[in-house]
Amino acid sequence: MTYAFSDILSAVPAMTPFVGPETLERRRGRPFDYRIGANESAFGISPVAKAAMAAELERVNWYCDPEHFDLREKLAERLGVTRDNIVIGEGIDGLLGVTVRAFTNPGDAIVTSAGAYPTFNYHVTGYGGRLVFVPYRADCHNDLEALVETARDERAKLLFLANPDNPTGTMLPPAAIAEALARLPEGCLFILDEAYAEFAPPGELPPLEAEDPRLIRMRTFSKAHGMAGLRVGYAIAAQELTAAFNKIRLHFGVGRLSQVAAAASLDDPDFAAAVVRQVEEGRDDYAALGRDLNLATIPSLTNFVAFDLEIAQASERMVALLDRRGVFVRRPAVEPLGRFVRVTVGTPEERAGFAAAFKDALQELRAG
Amino acid sequence: MTYAFSDILSAVPAMTPFVGPETLERRRGRPFDYRIGANESAFGISPVAKAAMAAELERVNWYCDPEHFDLREKLAERLGVTRDNIVIGEGIDGLLGVTVRAFTNPGDAIVTSAGAYPTFNYHVTGYGGRLVFVPYRADCHNDLEALVETARDERAKLLFLANPDNPTGTMLPPAAIAEALARLPEGCLFILDEAYAEFAPPGELPPLEAEDPRLIRMRTFSKAHGMAGLRVGYAIAAQELTAAFNKIRLHFGVGRLSQVAAAASLDDPDFAAAVVRQVEEGRDDYAALGRDLNLATIPSLTNFVAFDLEIAQASERMVALLDRRGVFVRRPAVEPLGRFVRVTVGTPEERAGFAAAFKDALQELRAG
Repeated sequence: MTYAFSDILSAVPAMTPFVGPETLERRRGRPFDYRIGANESAFGISPVAKAAMAAELERVNWYCDPEHFDLREKLAERLGVTRDNIVIGEGIDGLLGVTVRAFTNPGDAIVTSAGAYPTFNYHVTGYGGRLVFVPYRADCHNDLEALVETARDERAKLLFLANPDNPTGTMLPPAAIAEALARLPEGCLFILDEAYAEFAPPGELPPLEAEDPRLIRMRTFSKAHGMAGLRVGYAIAAQELTAAFNKIRLHFGVGRLSQVAAAASLDDPDFAAAVVRQVEEGRDDYAALGRDLNLATIPSLTNFVAFDLEIAQASERMVALLDRRGVFVRRPAVEPLGRFVRVTVGTPEERAGFAAAFKDALQELRAG
Repeated sequence: MTYAFSDILSAVPAMTPFVGPETLERRRGRPFDYRIGANESAFGISPVAKAAMAAELERVNWYCDPEHFDLREKLAERLGVTRDNIVIGEGIDGLLGVTVRAFTNPGDAIVTSAGAYPTFNYHVTGYGGRLVFVPYRADCHNDLEALVETARDERAKLLFLANPDNPTGTMLPPAAIAEALARLPEGCLFILDEAYAEFAPPGELPPLEAEDPRLIRMRTFSKAHGMAGLRVGYAIAAQELTAAFNKIRLHFGVGRLSQVAAAASLDDPDFAAAVVRQVEEGRDDYAALGRDLNLATIPSLTNFVAFDLEIAQASERMVALLDRRGVFVRRPAVEPLGRFVRVTVGTPEERAGFAAAFKDALQELRAG
């Protein structure tokens, strides 16, 4: 080793949480026709946000506000919390990094579902934490009771749950979250990744109690607001916790255009609401497609649907068959989820294109 | 303490590396007329970059390429290094964070000039490093010999130098850097912050030897390219080092618009060259203004000039007097730099406005 790396880094293996579609396109030598594998929104961004960004192009020579004052103000007002209950970060990815960093001593146990969010695992490994995985239940729901029990057994510092969940699209009811919080061990923080919160039916999200010290909730402008390329996420947490984050977060990580766009999108709530309705239609389309093709789908409360190919080899082959037909989708690598392919809700045109390619690929798959 | 924070975070004091101009404006209750305190470019961005961003607004619903392939390709070609000698980050700030994290065990010594870059110090503190400060020389140049000797004495893991320097605007010749590298202790990495590289005369920057394991060089699109609000920096280092960064960096931290804008700006080198010429004119204006007002200035190779108010109290008062006149400038807080005010080169109009305010403020100051 040429370099005197830190003890933690020296022990970190090379890993890539996600191979992005651009990388896949470089490998296959041409762009995908249907990019419906990364749960990006197919429905663009608010015209209000677009206009705000176009105007702000004149000011990108200026640094951004490192306090994210205007955006936090708007979020706080909308959510009924204080500005100091909000932290802005470079997407939920950035916020997960700060959270893991804030709590993890090398060797500390961190609990999550096997097959859940690779970037969370990447951060835990990168800060020297010890990942403890809990399998999904056989019915492909998160096993929250087992997650909490494992956190107790392992004296975990963090417990991660995506709700609504990715890659399954399922959701746990508020009562289950409340029960988990009640049994959460002392010294363990519950990270609730709510990237798909806007797609959940009203009343299905746990009530917002921002000063609850057991919980941090993370949300994003990447999904319903269609701003994955702008990297804006936010966390809702007690003021003592957000104050701690302010001691270590990257102050200028979220730039001017991103802040302005996110704030403007909040001013146009009809846009995100319309996206949610379009996504519901798309999920219905995919469920109907599954029935047509005699494939089960997991009822989803997100912007994607998992199709059940029944065995992992079939789902793995399906991803390749779809790739050959110009369609980018993903499959989870961990059982019992490996038999699914996860397909993002596209526009009606994209859905039609996917349906044709999927039928064709399935014929090839079933022909052996 | 409610939370079971990591040992490192528990020891980190609350600190803010920079109070941004937006925060100052909120405190004073109205915007500045002349925002020339943060070394932002007054000369906008390349029209080629602006057009590329306007087109890319249609695709911000997509995640960015986490490998920054196109931007690294262009940089590598322009710099005559390989793509794997380049790492992209959320400004130099983000890259400094990753570098400090990669090398610092709690308690490790990290050496820098007292009065140099607050955000570097912020990261060192945030990762549990032990900052060892070396004073600037009495002539306001970095004391590179003392920095290296201190790194040897302290067995430092990192040595930080901005070259051209901020807040002085001075530069050390390539021979001095080479000598420092020759005396650098084993196990210490030299971080050369070259944010102002484009403003340096050709031949004044050390030659690029990307595979030199003793050195990492950091540059940015924030200054000559006018993109401070977009948060794009890059580091040039040996492939073994960039590979290590890939194990811990935030993969999706630099968004689509930022990547596209930076790449497009590289395609328009005449733009940055014209900015550099305009900045040279502005520095000459400021030097002449200093002579008019009987104030020394430090000859600068950056986009700012430090005016010598002779004593720290005068410079502190001057910042307040200028604030009252609608002008935002900064002063270094550490001796022997405390007697300066640092003024960013503005447009000709901004320079005229500053000159008038400065004369007026100086009259008030000298009147006692």
